[in-house]
Amino acid sequence: MNNYGESNGDSNVHKKKVEGNDHCENGDGSDNGVILGVDGGATSTVCVCIPLFSSSKTLAYPLPVLGRAVSGCSNHNSVGENAARDTLEEVMAEALSKSGSDWSAVRAVCLGVSGVNHPTDQERILNWLREIFPSHVKLYVQNDAVAALASGTMGKLHGCVLIAGTGCISYGFAEDGREARASGAGPVLGDWGSGYGIAAKALTAVIRAHDGRGPQTMLTNKILKALSLSSPDELIGWTYADPSWARIAALVPEVVSCAEACDQVATKILVDAAQDLALSVKAVVQRLHLCGEDGNGSFPVVMVGGVLEANKTWDIGKEVVKCIQEQFPGAHPITPQVEPAVGAALLARNFLMKESTENCRS
Amino acid sequence: MNNYGESNGDSNVHKKKVEGNDHCENGDGSDNGVILGVDGGATSTVCVCIPLFSSSKTLAYPLPVLGRAVSGCSNHNSVGENAARDTLEEVMAEALSKSGSDWSAVRAVCLGVSGVNHPTDQERILNWLREIFPSHVKLYVQNDAVAALASGTMGKLHGCVLIAGTGCISYGFAEDGREARASGAGPVLGDWGSGYGIAAKALTAVIRAHDGRGPQTMLTNKILKALSLSSPDELIGWTYADPSWARIAALVPEVVSCAEACDQVATKILVDAAQDLALSVKAVVQRLHLCGEDGNGSFPVVMVGGVLEANKTWDIGKEVVKCIQEQFPGAHPITPQVEPAVGAALLARNFLMKESTENCRS
Repeated sequence: MNNYGESNGDSNVHKKKVEGNDHCENGDGSDNGVILGVDGGATSTVCVCIPLFSSSKTLAYPLPVLGRAVSGCSNHNSVGENAARDTLEEVMAEALSKSGSDWSAVRAVCLGVSGVNHPTDQERILNWLREIFPSHVKLYVQNDAVAALASGTMGKLHGCVLIAGTGCISYGFAEDGREARASGAGPVLGDWGSGYGIAAKALTAVIRAHDGRGPQTMLTNKILKALSLSSPDELIGWTYADPSWARIAALVPEVVSCAEACDQVATKILVDAAQDLALSVKAVVQRLHLCGEDGNGSFPVVMVGGVLEANKTWDIGKEVVKCIQEQFPGAHPITPQVEPAVGAALLARNFLMKESTENCRS
Repeated sequence: MNNYGESNGDSNVHKKKVEGNDHCENGDGSDNGVILGVDGGATSTVCVCIPLFSSSKTLAYPLPVLGRAVSGCSNHNSVGENAARDTLEEVMAEALSKSGSDWSAVRAVCLGVSGVNHPTDQERILNWLREIFPSHVKLYVQNDAVAALASGTMGKLHGCVLIAGTGCISYGFAEDGREARASGAGPVLGDWGSGYGIAAKALTAVIRAHDGRGPQTMLTNKILKALSLSSPDELIGWTYADPSWARIAALVPEVVSCAEACDQVATKILVDAAQDLALSVKAVVQRLHLCGEDGNGSFPVVMVGGVLEANKTWDIGKEVVKCIQEQFPGAHPITPQVEPAVGAALLARNFLMKESTENCRS
């Protein structure tokens, strides 16, 4: 796996005026150093600050999160490079401040950011970090799905994660480090299992019922009421007025509610979404042979995001697991006990430990 | 039908300094007055200037178009109100100038504009026109589909039109003036038969083949080559960089080309698109009872837009007509001999004639 992690080689770049911190990276009991973990999703960015453990210490649980901050979207594809960068810097500063810590205490940073689809994306974000942090700080940039996986496996990169919130993506790692992903390409490129995808299909169903192309559905009244609109015609202006994914994805609870009331159109939308999400996971499992030679091998599937959370009776996450297990009975669903930002921090810690072990050996 | 046509009641608003033109609206042989017809689509705006015929004259054919001008998008939903308004004013000025005419000669204007989905949209655009034209000029604002219908029926509002270009819409009128529409709601709301819809599905198919969720397809090489990209991963950045519909819809010829080479994925996309387009027409026909009591009555279906134009062997328009005629054998496809902007001008002329006939009677 290419971590795109590195130390900052340019010691002249100390934006935060950090001096005298040419710190031993191994850490020990007396170290006050911290690690920042950042989860940058399509809707919000979360940063947590955790203490730097020495490699000899057992991982305490629950994890001692020293500080936590939340900000807006930091997907450079969605909000532009400058806004994304500013958001990241602000949210890290706030988490440090809440921890009673500052930039000089930072030993490692792991950013799990949506919109990291290509090595050039990682390189761009690493460049932002290089301008913020001094050279001894270890920097790692990953797709946000990798941090989400780590949140379910306590930092171990093995198995598959499925994120289904405003957007959706499936991402996996084999024991030998090979990685694969599916979906996560955005609304134009058909992420139909995402919150955006589900809600867009529901809005389409309302329009189709209205103009005679589709069956009548409870979704019409439910969605018009939720948006304070009086006619399906007005949905056209509503979607044009602000096509942000999160605004549209916010309608998912209305779809679930209609499915729970046995509306057939809403039910079909959710069944299709569950199958689409399961297909993303299955594609990753197949490419990485996570299920072993006989197809029955056990592997974790970390489930993250609002779409996969249980509802009253219609549980999309449960439906997704059912679809996956029909093909791969060894799939073991995990609902993370920590948030993706903590997963990112754990990843940074694991990378650091691995590097220091390798340094001790050499 | 509500034409939203009216004279401008505020004689103080003469933006173009038109004076001394308190003109007889009936027109006669000696009149040098002109009519402007505007077709404002998702990609471009076309304005034509035709002479004002007296009501006694037979409609000359081919129509004497005095001047024609083309400009960018004037859909206020897409480009914003100010840009849309500026585009409209510029394109009208250029058509007048090319006609050797000026604002003072204008007797009537009909705008067929995409994005007119609600009476408030029509009212807003009428307000723009009221600021441009003096009070004796008759002003009509219609959805661009209405002008397209008129282009196939030489101004008569009867039957159904199907537009499938960058976007798509179906719009119809019964003999008694009742009207209905289907689709035309934009990409979020599922206009899957549109050029945008077809191309977005093709891009999705490339991503799905790449990440293991779908079958391999010729579309991958064809589309990557057309966009000068080296990997499907890069499509994500490409779509985010500029999500304009027209840019994506421009890939339709690649899809048709793959279908002509018997690629199954491309073929399925086009078959589905044709069925979706046919469904839009059928919904309008059914609501207006255009097919008569026995379902076999004859009615025109005006076919407009790049998606419906014949290709080498895979003709989407022909497939659409086949689907419609399976249910409604009396559907009579018409390919207009004049463009939608001329249709708009003919509409304005017909509205004028109707009003002057009614005035003569009263």
